[in-house]
Amino acid sequence: MTDAYTNAGVSIEAGNEAVARYRRVLPKHADPRVLEGIGGFAGCFALSGFRDPVLVASTDGVGTKLLVAAELSRFDTIGRDLVNHCVNDILCLNAGPLFFLDYLAVGKLDPAMAAAVVAGVGAACAEHEMTLLGGETAEMPGLYQPGHFDLAGTIVGALERAELADITRVAAGDVIIGLPANGFHTNGYSLVRKVLPASRWREPFGGATVADALLAVHPSYLGAIRAAQRAGVAVKAMAHITGGGLIDNLPRALPAGVAARLHRECWKVPAIMQLVVNEAALDRDTAYRVFNMGIGFCAIVAPAQASTALAAMPGSVVTGEVETAQPSGPTVVIS
Amino acid sequence: MTDAYTNAGVSIEAGNEAVARYRRVLPKHADPRVLEGIGGFAGCFALSGFRDPVLVASTDGVGTKLLVAAELSRFDTIGRDLVNHCVNDILCLNAGPLFFLDYLAVGKLDPAMAAAVVAGVGAACAEHEMTLLGGETAEMPGLYQPGHFDLAGTIVGALERAELADITRVAAGDVIIGLPANGFHTNGYSLVRKVLPASRWREPFGGATVADALLAVHPSYLGAIRAAQRAGVAVKAMAHITGGGLIDNLPRALPAGVAARLHRECWKVPAIMQLVVNEAALDRDTAYRVFNMGIGFCAIVAPAQASTALAAMPGSVVTGEVETAQPSGPTVVIS
Repeated sequence: MTDAYTNAGVSIEAGNEAVARYRRVLPKHADPRVLEGIGGFAGCFALSGFRDPVLVASTDGVGTKLLVAAELSRFDTIGRDLVNHCVNDILCLNAGPLFFLDYLAVGKLDPAMAAAVVAGVGAACAEHEMTLLGGETAEMPGLYQPGHFDLAGTIVGALERAELADITRVAAGDVIIGLPANGFHTNGYSLVRKVLPASRWREPFGGATVADALLAVHPSYLGAIRAAQRAGVAVKAMAHITGGGLIDNLPRALPAGVAARLHRECWKVPAIMQLVVNEAALDRDTAYRVFNMGIGFCAIVAPAQASTALAAMPGSVVTGEVETAQPSGPTVVIS
Repeated sequence: MTDAYTNAGVSIEAGNEAVARYRRVLPKHADPRVLEGIGGFAGCFALSGFRDPVLVASTDGVGTKLLVAAELSRFDTIGRDLVNHCVNDILCLNAGPLFFLDYLAVGKLDPAMAAAVVAGVGAACAEHEMTLLGGETAEMPGLYQPGHFDLAGTIVGALERAELADITRVAAGDVIIGLPANGFHTNGYSLVRKVLPASRWREPFGGATVADALLAVHPSYLGAIRAAQRAGVAVKAMAHITGGGLIDNLPRALPAGVAARLHRECWKVPAIMQLVVNEAALDRDTAYRVFNMGIGFCAIVAPAQASTALAAMPGSVVTGEVETAQPSGPTVVIS
């Protein structure tokens, strides 16, 4: 074979080497639900054990957090951010993960870099007993600058229809329990990078560096929620606090006629986030729309179950309560 | 709200406008399998009517064909390329489509452009009675040059386990039927753009322009294959001829011990492809690995069913046959 295609910027050998590395870095599991050896054009997953299954799916990316990872050449955490973000999204419907597919796009394929990214995806999948069923690594010369890449993924989960989260059960008086965020997760990085440019990432911060704080891995909240449910808590509704913050995301867990009243003194804003809020001189409303402000995930429970839920989920706090909405008032009131 | 976030290059208003436009351009369907109004963090799809379901999933992109679309500001076809490509991938396992999720990444969000891309995704989904269950539009300043974007998607299909394509049924003597390609589909564009730079896209070609030939929409082969099956043809194995061409993709439909012998005089190479092969002076082996060379999809059937299959699939041709493999010989022989 001539190297005409390589001259055009696409290396079939780099692609083959990346695939060989993926095999080495991905967890060796033998999920009997994955049907192997039937052609390779797509992944096959046998769905069994459900009476009335609902599939729950979401596609997401990691935003410009990947530019921080790229500039620092730290490729092992961004895949975990992606998977955990997606796990949390389908968790809001009460779905558990089945399988994942990733999309990695680069300008020039560096097999070691690609393998580090995919290893992170695979490790986070394994932590959720989820199969990495497929994926695509695309080398697109001319689209990405050297060292830049994009990463997105799709999760598919499932649950019995009767177990779907039903926000209509939420009522005034219910307690909104918050699970702590450890940083920006995967939102707001375009603003973060403007306030904290790369020149400041080596600065010490909280016992580590600014870079470490910026790349803190987006946590998965699946284990905490399942622990509460195992303890007997009926979680009525859930919200993953992503782009749009508490102000835009919490209303997605509320039925018409109620509002959320939150008490800011009940939880801590991560130090790195407070630094960015201060340096950017963000007003409160903007800050609570752009950042999670310290709460990564919310679960709404009946008041009688709040103490059981708090005990089952270490680090969780009461962030507020559901109340009857004021006519034409805001759906989220932060006091 | 201050415009601190807009100053960082991310426009929440443009995002909201894009979503509003998506609602207007997407087909108005009411698929009863899609469960609406339950929070919005992920899409919910009720799976019913299967006894022993296997989910078949694939993620793919459109490669640097999107740079051709971007340079020409033609955004309405690239979504169709993406969906049809994915439909063909899961068709190789004999799966039918259930739902799709798209990922559109831009440097600066132009709601009209994003709506044109997503309209193409939605139209191709509707043609396959498939639901666009979700998606992500990501604005990432600093990652994409002005006017550039990336587009990827994930398809999820299903079928009964007993109906999975089983390549072990393929035997020497079987007929390899080819379905015609209408151009490069979504592969080889990095090389194509090198041989045919943007300065040549306005040149007349085959009654239209080079640009039209380059952006010909990747066809879906689902209708043709289902027509053959309805006519009683047991399709034993299928191959979608994408990156790697006939040489790398056809072996994925062949069990050990057999090879494919193809007869080049049986089909036509699209004129635009022959032009690129000639101008790049590609040797035959390279051409058949980089391009589909005129065959977009292969179906392998028993000899007794070949004529029925050909009659059911307009434009299809016998491209070759399965034979016993020679020890250490190639798996695809092109004569």
